[in-house]
Amino acid sequence: MSAGINTYKTDLREIFFTLFEQFGFGQVAGQAPYDAWGPDEAKAVLTETYRFAREVLGPLNSVGDREGCRVENGAVFTPKGFKDAWNKLYEQGFKTVAVSPDHGGQGAPMMLQVTVEEILSGANTAFNMYPGLAFGAAEVIAECGTPAQQKQFVERMLNGTWGGTMCLTEPHAGSDVGAAKSTARRNADGTYNIRGTKIFISGGDHDMAGNIIHLVLARIDGAPVGTKGLSLFIVPKLRINADGSAGQPNDVTVASIEHKMGINGSATCVLNFGENDGCLGELVGTVEHVGMSQMFKMMNGARIAVGIQGVSLASAAYYNAVDYAKDRKQGSHFTKWKDPSAPRASIIEHPDVRRMLLDIKAHVEGIRALIIKLAMHLDKAKQLAGKDDDAATYHKGQVEVLTPLVKSYGSDQAFRLCAQAMQVYGGAGYIQDYPVEQYTRDSKIFSIYEGTNHIQAMDLVGRKMGQAGGAHFQQFMGDVGSFVEAHREHPVLGEAVKTLAGAQEGLMSSAMALFGWSQDAGRFPLIPLSANRFLNMMSEVAVGWLLLDAAVIAEKAAASVSADHPDKAFYEGKKFSALWYARNVLPNVEYAARLIATEDTSPMDITDAAFGGV
Amino acid sequence: MSAGINTYKTDLREIFFTLFEQFGFGQVAGQAPYDAWGPDEAKAVLTETYRFAREVLGPLNSVGDREGCRVENGAVFTPKGFKDAWNKLYEQGFKTVAVSPDHGGQGAPMMLQVTVEEILSGANTAFNMYPGLAFGAAEVIAECGTPAQQKQFVERMLNGTWGGTMCLTEPHAGSDVGAAKSTARRNADGTYNIRGTKIFISGGDHDMAGNIIHLVLARIDGAPVGTKGLSLFIVPKLRINADGSAGQPNDVTVASIEHKMGINGSATCVLNFGENDGCLGELVGTVEHVGMSQMFKMMNGARIAVGIQGVSLASAAYYNAVDYAKDRKQGSHFTKWKDPSAPRASIIEHPDVRRMLLDIKAHVEGIRALIIKLAMHLDKAKQLAGKDDDAATYHKGQVEVLTPLVKSYGSDQAFRLCAQAMQVYGGAGYIQDYPVEQYTRDSKIFSIYEGTNHIQAMDLVGRKMGQAGGAHFQQFMGDVGSFVEAHREHPVLGEAVKTLAGAQEGLMSSAMALFGWSQDAGRFPLIPLSANRFLNMMSEVAVGWLLLDAAVIAEKAAASVSADHPDKAFYEGKKFSALWYARNVLPNVEYAARLIATEDTSPMDITDAAFGGV
Repeated sequence: MSAGINTYKTDLREIFFTLFEQFGFGQVAGQAPYDAWGPDEAKAVLTETYRFAREVLGPLNSVGDREGCRVENGAVFTPKGFKDAWNKLYEQGFKTVAVSPDHGGQGAPMMLQVTVEEILSGANTAFNMYPGLAFGAAEVIAECGTPAQQKQFVERMLNGTWGGTMCLTEPHAGSDVGAAKSTARRNADGTYNIRGTKIFISGGDHDMAGNIIHLVLARIDGAPVGTKGLSLFIVPKLRINADGSAGQPNDVTVASIEHKMGINGSATCVLNFGENDGCLGELVGTVEHVGMSQMFKMMNGARIAVGIQGVSLASAAYYNAVDYAKDRKQGSHFTKWKDPSAPRASIIEHPDVRRMLLDIKAHVEGIRALIIKLAMHLDKAKQLAGKDDDAATYHKGQVEVLTPLVKSYGSDQAFRLCAQAMQVYGGAGYIQDYPVEQYTRDSKIFSIYEGTNHIQAMDLVGRKMGQAGGAHFQQFMGDVGSFVEAHREHPVLGEAVKTLAGAQEGLMSSAMALFGWSQDAGRFPLIPLSANRFLNMMSEVAVGWLLLDAAVIAEKAAASVSADHPDKAFYEGKKFSALWYARNVLPNVEYAARLIATEDTSPMDITDAAFGGV
Repeated sequence: MSAGINTYKTDLREIFFTLFEQFGFGQVAGQAPYDAWGPDEAKAVLTETYRFAREVLGPLNSVGDREGCRVENGAVFTPKGFKDAWNKLYEQGFKTVAVSPDHGGQGAPMMLQVTVEEILSGANTAFNMYPGLAFGAAEVIAECGTPAQQKQFVERMLNGTWGGTMCLTEPHAGSDVGAAKSTARRNADGTYNIRGTKIFISGGDHDMAGNIIHLVLARIDGAPVGTKGLSLFIVPKLRINADGSAGQPNDVTVASIEHKMGINGSATCVLNFGENDGCLGELVGTVEHVGMSQMFKMMNGARIAVGIQGVSLASAAYYNAVDYAKDRKQGSHFTKWKDPSAPRASIIEHPDVRRMLLDIKAHVEGIRALIIKLAMHLDKAKQLAGKDDDAATYHKGQVEVLTPLVKSYGSDQAFRLCAQAMQVYGGAGYIQDYPVEQYTRDSKIFSIYEGTNHIQAMDLVGRKMGQAGGAHFQQFMGDVGSFVEAHREHPVLGEAVKTLAGAQEGLMSSAMALFGWSQDAGRFPLIPLSANRFLNMMSEVAVGWLLLDAAVIAEKAAASVSADHPDKAFYEGKKFSALWYARNVLPNVEYAARLIATEDTSPMDITDAAFGGV
């Protein structure tokens, strides 16, 4: 493919359906604090975002992949065109759609921001990581910083004047963040001297903004070992002048950037702090040793963002593959496959291609629905806080339990679905003329960063399931159960709804097994051994439920649409997404529950030596 | 990773077990035509191959990936070091281990050659494709060529003097080979003038051999449409002089090479034939219009070779990941995970890492066993032909039904397992310092080339299952059944053997369903819709069976080994590979059988428009 050709594709009709018809954007918007927003405003934003994605970001996606970033004299240079795209992105305000007006934003619901993010990330995942990290870092300062810090940093980091990063990982502290060795020494003036090396820092340096604000986890001299001794520091690349502007360099140096499988347009840096004349930082807020919980405010958003990255690429791969399958002729229709003189058919006519496409379609739509549902819970929690605290607690709880699902299932499926889209292309999918091979490479990191998917699974089974005495999980099960009761006799979808009910039973039996093991030290290893499987089961129940929910709505809507209106086919597509998933994926949950019940401990029973190798 | 560091790893103990203890290499060798061979000779060859793989091919693997190939003035230049490796490979005879002494080979069983190939391919997949294609092309000429052609080409192509390719695919004829438009015009002297464009030609040009012999499918003027009108031609890059040496260029031009996701050291060429002053070819053999069946003699071997490529990378990823997991410290032991001052543990101590590693181990060993079993059938078919024709027919039949399993399951699992090995590494797996990201990229093509995995699935259900009145499939089921009967009361493995029995029942019920649909035109689409699932089920039964077979042998052998001998751990590892697979994978077969029985036709019921997109 010639660099510079847009390859991003989505279908706004599908996004509009999920946002407006399935999740009632109009009911969330229109009320404080979202009273300035309604469906028309949201449509305008999404249409404009899609235009920007196709015209500006999409053409830079393969450029970024081929060219990558480079380090010269300790400074990172991003691929050609990125700086211009950065400026345009912020001029048009795509990053501040859901930001509070207090920080210069437009105050829309998160439901809208997550769909905007899907489009930006789908068009150019690597590019969108830079503003994404800046956004996350700004959020932490907005939530945890002093008023002076908020005033100094937040708006600049949200409007693109400055960038931002999160600096957790060190060479011997990846998943094990608490092992971090970076240090902070308190100075007489209240600042801290920061020393240490951080690795895998996305956007750790770049040439698109006037300064970069690093949030650095470090241990103040004398603090306890482990995560409880970590504090969080604001460490600007350029020190801040008395007037608030960026000044002299702050001894943050780029040691190198990584050469990766994908997301090559995103600079993944090794950063050294305080290696030369001293690196100054200031504590976020006023309390020491609470860095982990502060960082976690950013981490939850970051994990949802990874799920969005996942659906964004799977969706882009899907619409590209559909177009290719409609266009590409190969072989004859399967009813005439023995007749060499039969006309050549578009490959979308071949059953196996249709099977692969429908599988991708169903997963993409279901994961997108799960993300928008999660965003709706975020919005309602905010909207109802102080008005109806029970309801707000319910919505917050759903955010807690759904976040690991969005991150893990969104990422695992993204990689699988992008690879399946390659299979639709055949040999063409393996070459760089088409975007799917890049999507596949880019998407592989999603299951690893921001907490590996096993960390997500342990977050779910070891933490979220037990929160509030198990209430969040029970409420999730209650929501699914209510849907089942309401629709199990649906004339078209009833059988599929019953399959969902069976899946839900399987999930409940595995939840009980996990609970039992948590009370039994001898069986404790079964929890980490089963955690990923359980997380996947719960994700399948959630996605299956939301696909069926969408199909119920679509079936109703279709009844009043004339046969030749494009919506007729669209609604039919929603029905088949749900049926495919219910018939081919949901039965997996009961099956997986039986596997969990066998209590297989073979990975613990085998000795290290028996793994072989030398 | 510094280019030039060997990263290839295998465990010869495991290969020796499968070859000698499980499949009785000693009983196949030692008898005509393999009488010069025994276990000692095989061990010596494999030890030498592994040395060569580590010292010569392994260090060139990342070089080939980074540097890729380049075209200058119409000629392909391979990465630095490839030509030297080519010379050494042929000097040491690794490619001719199983070649008949009539063609300058060493006459060993295929069982040995497939393990040699695994090691060569695992060390450097891209490099090993060049001699692999030359080998396949030589085989076709050896089987189908005239005596003069055999004398002229075969030995030169087997000893590395000349290379070789297979030229099937054209821009509009990929899976649909019969749509090829290349033409051949008969000349008065019996030669043919070849014209056309071929794409995706692996090793279509390179700088390592004195000539390249292309086997080109083309349609003689006036021949029928479709595959039945295709003939196969020998088209040398350099015309052959009267003395048999390479002479003047033959108007075969390299239009370009592809930029791919992986196997970058392998030049994937667009070749133009007869674009300028005329390209001369000679018919393979003496009969026109039989090109497809001639080419298929090469294709079956090529498909087995793809399965070997699959296991070679999955195995290399496994042994690298095991080493990394033993070496890398991160977090504390799971029994002390809340104690930040506990000593840091090797990640192999973490349950989820053990789970991922055991899953890779089991699949790799099972697929390797399936490949060696298939090679054993090839050897026995050859050995028994003319001596015991019933037995020879049985062995040939097993080659037929097992080939699509080896190709598809070997390739699908390779990609999945390499990606899972990346997950063991965490973030490090995504960067090029470690080999797993390259393995993942390299392995993705395996499910696509040499017939996509759906073509394999249709080959199985549409062709192989029905061969000889279904006898080959029934004999496969009989072999599995005999094993089940013999071992269902095994004290350690009995439960797992019963799971295999259940899986076999599931497979049989799906086979009956497929048979029923083949008699019912209205249900015909269910066959292509279910074919991949069925192929996967049969692969799981085959792999589960052979893992259990290995475990039975290992359990017996372990009884007479002292506790401190390294074999004790090795045999224990074989047991756990089988138990893992039986407990976590084999139950999938019965489940999949139930999905097949639902006769879901949703991919056919959905309209094209309902797939969405624009």
